[in-house]
Amino acid sequence: MSNVRTDHDAFGTIAVPQDRYWGAQTQRALEVFQVSDERFPVALIRAFALQKIAAVRANLQLGTIAPEIAAPIETAALELHQGRFDDHFPLPIWQTGSGTQTNMNANEVIANRANELLGQPLGTKSPVHPNDHVNCSQSSNDSFPTVMHVATALELRRRLLPALQTLRDDLRAKADAFSDVVKIGRTHLMDAVPMTMGQAFDAFARQIGHALDRIEAVFPRLLMLPQGGTAVGSGLNAPAGFDSAFCGHLNALTGVAFVPNPSKFEGIGAHDSLVEVSGALNGLAVTLLKIANDVRFLGSGPRCGLGELVIPHDGLTSSIMPGKRNPTIAEMLAQVCFQVTGNNAVVTAASASGNFELNVAKPVIIYNVLQSIRILADGIDVFTSRLIRDLDVDRRQLAANVANAPLLATALNPVIGYDKVALITARALDEGITPREAAIALGLLSGEDYDRYVDPQRMAGI
Amino acid sequence: MSNVRTDHDAFGTIAVPQDRYWGAQTQRALEVFQVSDERFPVALIRAFALQKIAAVRANLQLGTIAPEIAAPIETAALELHQGRFDDHFPLPIWQTGSGTQTNMNANEVIANRANELLGQPLGTKSPVHPNDHVNCSQSSNDSFPTVMHVATALELRRRLLPALQTLRDDLRAKADAFSDVVKIGRTHLMDAVPMTMGQAFDAFARQIGHALDRIEAVFPRLLMLPQGGTAVGSGLNAPAGFDSAFCGHLNALTGVAFVPNPSKFEGIGAHDSLVEVSGALNGLAVTLLKIANDVRFLGSGPRCGLGELVIPHDGLTSSIMPGKRNPTIAEMLAQVCFQVTGNNAVVTAASASGNFELNVAKPVIIYNVLQSIRILADGIDVFTSRLIRDLDVDRRQLAANVANAPLLATALNPVIGYDKVALITARALDEGITPREAAIALGLLSGEDYDRYVDPQRMAGI
Amino acid sequence: MSNVRTDHDAFGTIAVPQDRYWGAQTQRALEVFQVSDERFPVALIRAFALQKIAAVRANLQLGTIAPEIAAPIETAALELHQGRFDDHFPLPIWQTGSGTQTNMNANEVIANRANELLGQPLGTKSPVHPNDHVNCSQSSNDSFPTVMHVATALELRRRLLPALQTLRDDLRAKADAFSDVVKIGRTHLMDAVPMTMGQAFDAFARQIGHALDRIEAVFPRLLMLPQGGTAVGSGLNAPAGFDSAFCGHLNALTGVAFVPNPSKFEGIGAHDSLVEVSGALNGLAVTLLKIANDVRFLGSGPRCGLGELVIPHDGLTSSIMPGKRNPTIAEMLAQVCFQVTGNNAVVTAASASGNFELNVAKPVIIYNVLQSIRILADGIDVFTSRLIRDLDVDRRQLAANVANAPLLATALNPVIGYDKVALITARALDEGITPREAAIALGLLSGEDYDRYVDPQRMAGI
Amino acid sequence: MSNVRTDHDAFGTIAVPQDRYWGAQTQRALEVFQVSDERFPVALIRAFALQKIAAVRANLQLGTIAPEIAAPIETAALELHQGRFDDHFPLPIWQTGSGTQTNMNANEVIANRANELLGQPLGTKSPVHPNDHVNCSQSSNDSFPTVMHVATALELRRRLLPALQTLRDDLRAKADAFSDVVKIGRTHLMDAVPMTMGQAFDAFARQIGHALDRIEAVFPRLLMLPQGGTAVGSGLNAPAGFDSAFCGHLNALTGVAFVPNPSKFEGIGAHDSLVEVSGALNGLAVTLLKIANDVRFLGSGPRCGLGELVIPHDGLTSSIMPGKRNPTIAEMLAQVCFQVTGNNAVVTAASASGNFELNVAKPVIIYNVLQSIRILADGIDVFTSRLIRDLDVDRRQLAANVANAPLLATALNPVIGYDKVALITARALDEGITPREAAIALGLLSGEDYDRYVDPQRMAGI
Repeated sequence: MSNVRTDHDAFGTIAVPQDRYWGAQTQRALEVFQVSDERFPVALIRAFALQKIAAVRANLQLGTIAPEIAAPIETAALELHQGRFDDHFPLPIWQTGSGTQTNMNANEVIANRANELLGQPLGTKSPVHPNDHVNCSQSSNDSFPTVMHVATALELRRRLLPALQTLRDDLRAKADAFSDVVKIGRTHLMDAVPMTMGQAFDAFARQIGHALDRIEAVFPRLLMLPQGGTAVGSGLNAPAGFDSAFCGHLNALTGVAFVPNPSKFEGIGAHDSLVEVSGALNGLAVTLLKIANDVRFLGSGPRCGLGELVIPHDGLTSSIMPGKRNPTIAEMLAQVCFQVTGNNAVVTAASASGNFELNVAKPVIIYNVLQSIRILADGIDVFTSRLIRDLDVDRRQLAANVANAPLLATALNPVIGYDKVALITARALDEGITPREAAIALGLLSGEDYDRYVDPQRMAGI
Repeated sequence: MSNVRTDHDAFGTIAVPQDRYWGAQTQRALEVFQVSDERFPVALIRAFALQKIAAVRANLQLGTIAPEIAAPIETAALELHQGRFDDHFPLPIWQTGSGTQTNMNANEVIANRANELLGQPLGTKSPVHPNDHVNCSQSSNDSFPTVMHVATALELRRRLLPALQTLRDDLRAKADAFSDVVKIGRTHLMDAVPMTMGQAFDAFARQIGHALDRIEAVFPRLLMLPQGGTAVGSGLNAPAGFDSAFCGHLNALTGVAFVPNPSKFEGIGAHDSLVEVSGALNGLAVTLLKIANDVRFLGSGPRCGLGELVIPHDGLTSSIMPGKRNPTIAEMLAQVCFQVTGNNAVVTAASASGNFELNVAKPVIIYNVLQSIRILADGIDVFTSRLIRDLDVDRRQLAANVANAPLLATALNPVIGYDKVALITARALDEGITPREAAIALGLLSGEDYDRYVDPQRMAGI
Repeated sequence: MSNVRTDHDAFGTIAVPQDRYWGAQTQRALEVFQVSDERFPVALIRAFALQKIAAVRANLQLGTIAPEIAAPIETAALELHQGRFDDHFPLPIWQTGSGTQTNMNANEVIANRANELLGQPLGTKSPVHPNDHVNCSQSSNDSFPTVMHVATALELRRRLLPALQTLRDDLRAKADAFSDVVKIGRTHLMDAVPMTMGQAFDAFARQIGHALDRIEAVFPRLLMLPQGGTAVGSGLNAPAGFDSAFCGHLNALTGVAFVPNPSKFEGIGAHDSLVEVSGALNGLAVTLLKIANDVRFLGSGPRCGLGELVIPHDGLTSSIMPGKRNPTIAEMLAQVCFQVTGNNAVVTAASASGNFELNVAKPVIIYNVLQSIRILADGIDVFTSRLIRDLDVDRRQLAANVANAPLLATALNPVIGYDKVALITARALDEGITPREAAIALGLLSGEDYDRYVDPQRMAGI
Repeated sequence: MSNVRTDHDAFGTIAVPQDRYWGAQTQRALEVFQVSDERFPVALIRAFALQKIAAVRANLQLGTIAPEIAAPIETAALELHQGRFDDHFPLPIWQTGSGTQTNMNANEVIANRANELLGQPLGTKSPVHPNDHVNCSQSSNDSFPTVMHVATALELRRRLLPALQTLRDDLRAKADAFSDVVKIGRTHLMDAVPMTMGQAFDAFARQIGHALDRIEAVFPRLLMLPQGGTAVGSGLNAPAGFDSAFCGHLNALTGVAFVPNPSKFEGIGAHDSLVEVSGALNGLAVTLLKIANDVRFLGSGPRCGLGELVIPHDGLTSSIMPGKRNPTIAEMLAQVCFQVTGNNAVVTAASASGNFELNVAKPVIIYNVLQSIRILADGIDVFTSRLIRDLDVDRRQLAANVANAPLLATALNPVIGYDKVALITARALDEGITPREAAIALGLLSGEDYDRYVDPQRMAGI
């Protein structure tokens, strides 16, 4: 065992791999929590680095840490932010519910690296101590939820919102491109009255626009941080003004306007704001499922389906039906949406489980929120760039459907009344003729009058 | 206020409507829980009557109650079972989590009626006392979950299972009727290779058959009753053998083989068995959604959709498109399924919330379980009798689709290999020709050879 | 069958009860959809009346209906709004997915009543026709979702938001009343460091405040109405400007600022805005569960639990343990929350199921949204008025807990460092002594110094 | 780009990393599906190897593949099963809904390795072709769901069921060890009547026993495999008897009794059996949450909580409260349970989304099912070995609680009647005295009589 060193904590000594920057508490947790292989995403580790940088700067500003200790901590945390220690966070999601072990992991990695920068070997905990210095004025109980909010806000801003904007713009471009394409509308899946393909895509674009607004609406509460509450929310062992100083430094680092939560107790004991985020993502999933399914069904066929949309080919095919082309990307997106909906159920149950001063389902909450954001952002990017952008219509099929539609006589309601129109439709359906033929056969209208009132283009509003 | 009487309990007196058989505790609860208007279904009230009958018979058998007290209690409970007092259970679902107020409601109604039978006015609590006699050897904590199991078991046996059997049989009949109807198969919504409509309905029938098996599988645990555990599971104040005697009498009344739960603590503190029931109903909802959606889509059109099934008309139409016919019954069933899936989430969360010796979400659990059973049973009955039974196929449309299918050349894989078949399909799709034409054009097969290998009937396995 | 009349529609004649104002399509639907007994709440029926009043006024304004037809329609719809015909809406939730049958029910009731006002018998459909006049410029497809939004907005404004404001104010009052009550904080359920009971209730009040903000945030989209889109969203058969005229009249009736949805297609084909509402209600349920559970656990005992809160007695007790007092109201509220969470799953699944121009799960969506609002509003009212308002603390128990707390030495971290404080706590726990005694025994601090640094009042921030 | 080779498929050529065994279709998919980093677990990849071994053996047996082609395929698949190519499955979960790309990945890796064994360079597709030979008699549409069932069955048998058996046995051992430990029972969280700690753990053990039975109950349907159905279920291009031959070989490899699904259509178009598995896991999660929460709360304190259980220390502590010991492992397990519950929602929604002959949410379904099994199995193992096994009771605290309990007089119900017992309890609570003192003060019983009837040991049933 020459490749281990001996670290110590309040409970004794423990062997740690020589080349790892984590310490005794991380190592103990690693041995306890041998549960599957889900890990926090890099987005969370990097957000932890930002939290530690802002914290050490606030401590320095408020005099709770000496400059010669603060300097190497900040350097180490900056390296952590740059990704140098991504491989030094071995703990699974399935750990204590406060995320304490991952906060200690960050404290230990930074302390070890800081001490190394000061010429000390790993494991010394001196002169930089993981709790007294790196964790100074902090608890896991306020730091971890702060990081949850920071990572979520950054992932939304940097990944999901841009992906949505691009999708909305591409859908808008299709709405414009298809604005003169008349199609049959379908209600209850059944042939109804005409509209344009542009109107369908305009609705999609607006749905995404609303989804963007819903996600923006979460920020007033998402930007509230419990940092400064320490163990239970009272701020024990943190200097006055720590919360504001922290947010000031964090905002300088991120360009986001985080603010102190006026009740640290609220921000530590509950995660209602992440339920709100997850609810918005759930709503987005509902929206995307509608769009993906409409695209899939309108593109079904090519010969025995609806066949009104032509989905660009992605080079993938069946393992048994050579040359078959499938709406693989819409299926991918639908699966992403199912996951997001289930993740919302996780976040709901986990957040509802809190007691007293600490919600102890933090890791599973943030795991699900960040997974939802990531798969949505990536899934939307692929859906936009590889499916929507080059989507086309089959004008021949569209025109044939409109010409064939049995309910065009609905336009006659204001002319001859509902009950007589019903006779036309019934005749058309029973005899397999057009409503025009039925109207004439029933002696209700001349062909000329029919054509004057029943014009699919005008019925579609163009 | 001449139409009220004054009842009393341990906390004092209270005015109760003169013509109501409930007493002071029910009246207090009615005034406290002014929350919406969801009430327990009659199925639960009637099951409570059965529980009280079996209990009083067991008490009589074991000597814990005198015959002259037992007799009017039994008579009153029998009347309750016959529905005479359905209107005397005014409390909402939203009450205490043990269902205590509804158990007291039953105790009070039966005691009042028993005393009335003995010539006493309502409200006397003497000689028959609601707690000492009607509730003798019982607590709400064991009686209410017993009733939950009894009501669930009876509703499954009498309503849902027969409905499912009929649906399965009707689907099986359609499978037989459509056994020679060749149709194009669809994977990823896209045209694939031929099959028969009978095979599709055979799969549906088997799905329902499996759903039946899944529901049957819950009974070994559903039939375990916690009666006899009284307050916490220990059986305090109940005579030895009460649980077995109770089940004996209950089984004589119901014809079902209920057994005592060997751990009353398990049956009072947790409702895992109802989670199991709800999970089976959730699975059934998934199954029904698949079937209802396939029927809806295959029946879509009549001219601009898939149009392969002809859904019987139900006499309902659009308020604006006269004569339009919609798959209303399939939509009804789909909505039932969504409700059942959400109810399962309620049951899951409510059951997971238990602490120590008593789960206190009993009313909401049984409300959701019984609603799910009821709407499934009724919804299935309507779906079977008004949609499936008279469902037909459009043979012309089916044949046209098969003739038009672009991937029939898949049958050539074993003859010329996957890569060459891919060339055929690509050519057919690109040029809008049949795969037969493409195969010949590519010089890969003669028309005669093609026809020898590519036979939709044989490809469908008939 | 002398008590029936014979009504007719496009599909023939049908017997309708003589004293019912509904017509042939409602009667047919009643016979088809024999599925359980869930009905739309009165809130939806009344909102339908408002929709019909606003519609007839808009038709009159735009000249699409004659004054002599409009007048009796408006009178009839006003009577409907006043509740005169609540008993004439017999259809279950479990019907067609567009809500068409309930829209036709409203059309038929109003037409029959209007004709009656004009001296005609029920069932004549003349001079006022249910489709041509009452439904003029409308479809079920735009009217029903309009009513969904109107009913939801009114129920939120009139019931849920006031209930929440009162709860927040009462929690705030408790926060003030308990501002000097020091208690032990609990993290991971374990004894942590001191705080005040006021801080706990301040967090609760803020949570409710945030919940209010989240519900307010849904209104920009909830207030968008699809009325004017008619069958598919294109506005076929509605005059130009119908949407704006409709909203003008509706807003005059309701005092709410509804606006036309710029894409009627969006508002008919999808219900993302109701998913958003439901998501906010789900979030509120999570919040309330935390509060209700904390209240329950802090009030547990009275002698073998935490016993820090004293829950007012509601007069209800156990059926077997005489005099037992339980947190029944908190349990009621928790069950409401489970239901709301499951209803959110229903709304999510149902909304995600839409295809093309029409979501066909409208009835089940609005049933769940309105149930959630109702049970939340009522449940919160009871929780506030009967539990929170008279909640008290047990100061003796609170003080004993703080005096007994093992982790008070945490306040020494900045003085002697984390590792030495760990020794104090370990000693205190191992030997069953106070941390003060442990600190002295370990020779780390004098008693005077200990008392100077470790002051529960100051640790709680007061 | 010297480290790539050029592979080809029906759509042209593409560059593949030289050292990777996958081929063109995998590479294309990798470029299309750049969506997050969730990958199939090794359990699925290894099950795919088993499927390919059984398939090639069945093909050899039935003469559809030549021995000289079959031999290297089998060798390659065996290597795959041994884990040699785990790193050659780069595709994310978020791909086409049939899992086709991962099936093609398996086909390509095996074909490349087989050709390599025959002395050919990677990418030749000859003499062993990924579709014609490795995929012979198969489609992704039957192979992937077969693998879903195989992986699930093996993970249940090998991981989850043993973990549950051990937990049940450990809980049973605690039930025995604590069989004479009298404790106060708690209903509604409030002090109720006595019982033993052994009874509580007996209930836990039985709950786990029932959970085992529920999981066993899924096997009759889980063991049905759709292999042999090929593209849509009809078995096109597979020889007669392929399904039985396949199961024979698979069972020889696994020791499990898989059987052919009598309707391949059912097994390809729907995943009801995996919904059933997931439902059983959801039920298990509910069970575990109850147990984990009871353990957490009964172990809360150590001084200001219930303090009746002593949870073994795991060496982990707070980052700010040195020496604090938290129920970290119970929190871990609770979080696992929340995830499983949400995963069940994913499986439900994904399975309900199927259309026609193919459910296209297969990857997300199996990802969630296998994650649930894995985290449950691992989480339970840790919970059993590190928490339950060394759990102890605090007899002093337990005895004090029983002595202090206010409702012991409940045992007097059969002696003096419910209403008089209510007076005793009310007096005891109001005056802060014991029920014995209250009984005497009220003149209802002598102290001797009281002690004769009220004996906590006997009330607990020991």
